Amino acid sequence: MADVNRCWVLVRRPQGRDFADALELTEGSIPALADGEVLVRNALLSLDAGTRMWMNPREDSYSPPTPLGSPVIGMVLGTVVASRHPDFREGDLARAYGQWSDYSVCQPDVAYAQRLSWRMDDLRQYLAVFGPNGWTAYLGVLEYTQAKPGDTFVVSAASGVTGALAGQIAKLHGCRVVGITGSRAKCSWVVDELGFDAAIDYSTQDVPEALAAACPDGIDVYFDNVGGEILDACMGNMALFGRIGICGLIVNYENDELVPGPYKFDQMLMKRLTMVGFFSPDFYHRGPDVDRRMRPWYDAGQLKMAFDVTEGLEHTLDAYAKLFTSAKVGKSLVQLQELHP
Amino acid sequence: MADVNRCWVLVRRPQGRDFADALELTEGSIPALADGEVLVRNALLSLDAGTRMWMNPREDSYSPPTPLGSPVIGMVLGTVVASRHPDFREGDLARAYGQWSDYSVCQPDVAYAQRLSWRMDDLRQYLAVFGPNGWTAYLGVLEYTQAKPGDTFVVSAASGVTGALAGQIAKLHGCRVVGITGSRAKCSWVVDELGFDAAIDYSTQDVPEALAAACPDGIDVYFDNVGGEILDACMGNMALFGRIGICGLIVNYENDELVPGPYKFDQMLMKRLTMVGFFSPDFYHRGPDVDRRMRPWYDAGQLKMAFDVTEGLEHTLDAYAKLFTSAKVGKSLVQLQELHP
Repeated sequence: MADVNRCWVLVRRPQGRDFADALELTEGSIPALADGEVLVRNALLSLDAGTRMWMNPREDSYSPPTPLGSPVIGMVLGTVVASRHPDFREGDLARAYGQWSDYSVCQPDVAYAQRLSWRMDDLRQYLAVFGPNGWTAYLGVLEYTQAKPGDTFVVSAASGVTGALAGQIAKLHGCRVVGITGSRAKCSWVVDELGFDAAIDYSTQDVPEALAAACPDGIDVYFDNVGGEILDACMGNMALFGRIGICGLIVNYENDELVPGPYKFDQMLMKRLTMVGFFSPDFYHRGPDVDRRMRPWYDAGQLKMAFDVTEGLEHTLDAYAKLFTSAKVGKSLVQLQELHP
Repeated sequence: MADVNRCWVLVRRPQGRDFADALELTEGSIPALADGEVLVRNALLSLDAGTRMWMNPREDSYSPPTPLGSPVIGMVLGTVVASRHPDFREGDLARAYGQWSDYSVCQPDVAYAQRLSWRMDDLRQYLAVFGPNGWTAYLGVLEYTQAKPGDTFVVSAASGVTGALAGQIAKLHGCRVVGITGSRAKCSWVVDELGFDAAIDYSTQDVPEALAAACPDGIDVYFDNVGGEILDACMGNMALFGRIGICGLIVNYENDELVPGPYKFDQMLMKRLTMVGFFSPDFYHRGPDVDRRMRPWYDAGQLKMAFDVTEGLEHTLDAYAKLFTSAKVGKSLVQLQELHP
């Protein structure tokens, strides 16, 4: 066990994607545990767009701002190396809210922490199909937006982990699925590899026009991961009684100022739409049940995922910036070490 | 039966509330009926904010624009004076989509038209409690926004017909009810006469601050009749998992240009809100059932209403402008004649 713990600390509020100026990689000793705490040696860091929000000073986001001088918090997967909690033991595989660091101090009684089975063909899937992104996709499609067989289902950030899973689940559920993503290559991936019916490249196509062409009877369900202009384009193409799931508003995360709602907001009334916001910590407790429901699809090869893995804690910021620049496909992870029982 | 039919015709698209420039009162002969049509002598015209939208050229509202040169369409209550439809007979009381005119040509097979019982203590209530506004209030509270006993329920345009009924129904259902309206007198009316728990006067109070004070645990349900800044103020004060019903967006009706959505739109995600748009023609067929459910409350004096009645078809435009200037309380009607069997 290394005796140094490197840790990314927030020292300033970032402007846009300028993370290098806002975060510092500090070195310290391995933290000592208080009663009820667990020390996890991080193997994988899950990079999630929502973390960007906690770096902002705004108080009205779903989590309070990360205080300056504190470690960046995120979901990690790793091995328990010390425990002062009766339910976690050395050698356990754990997924938990930890820190962007070599070691995470986890507090299972205060924040999410879960022991997991070592029996999994690809342990990375605990941060993809069988993790918060997968649960969000599954419940977002089947419960929050009430997608129905035959519906025209549109998803943005379609080549991101949640979008890619939402589209595949909607397709398995009998929807016609159209993905919106940021390059020709990503469009090919979601159509040719994931089986979407169509894809729109927002970097080269007029999105409202392309949506009108791809969804001649309107959009029954829009699963939104981005907000902003793409949300507006979808609102202008909704079918009567359509549903919009607000899963992410990436365009809002980088702004300290308020970003106005969609210009076509009045379509809420004109088309009698339903819009619902959802957020995975609300349903972490349902994870085991959702995992069980997705398992047959996964085992049959029907839920595919790509991973964008960056090696080395020191490269975390470059990997993280890629979440906001459309420069990756699938689930973004930072790998610190190999993971095995 | 008078042999002249006066009729308000849309001759130009109105700017704001300048209805005098946009509508002309024409005179013509009593229309001849085609097969399937019914002639109603209008006794009461229902003035509804939504009609303003059809005067606009925008194609993406819930009804197509009224063509220039056509009569203004609206809900009317009156007596059938001629019929070429087997289900309507001379002397029937009818509520129907008709015209802002002395006589309405109604098409029961094409647009809403309903025979009604003469047994009603106040026939005006067919355009208030026991009409589309009442149904909207009832279903908006109990179904669309899923208000629950104990909820903090906020309604805008609280002294308008739909807002006043929504607030009373929410109160009867066990909610704590806060109304937002535009004068001290209207605040007194909704609190002292209708039994709301509190009221906010947007003409003199800071609405976000007043909401924060009146709803210290946040707003569980916001029943929106107006949109714009009031919607924004409510979105900034929602409780976790709150619901917003979009019943009207008056601020949008007067604009041909797009009005952006709320600046606090990201609260949809931060508070995991649900928002739903609804519109009475979707549930006209449920009217008899909703009437039956509201009847005991009405008979017990628990659903009160005020009427703002303007006499004379020639004064319709002044009465209509009052819908947008906060210059009336309760249901706005134009009376053309006394109504009796």
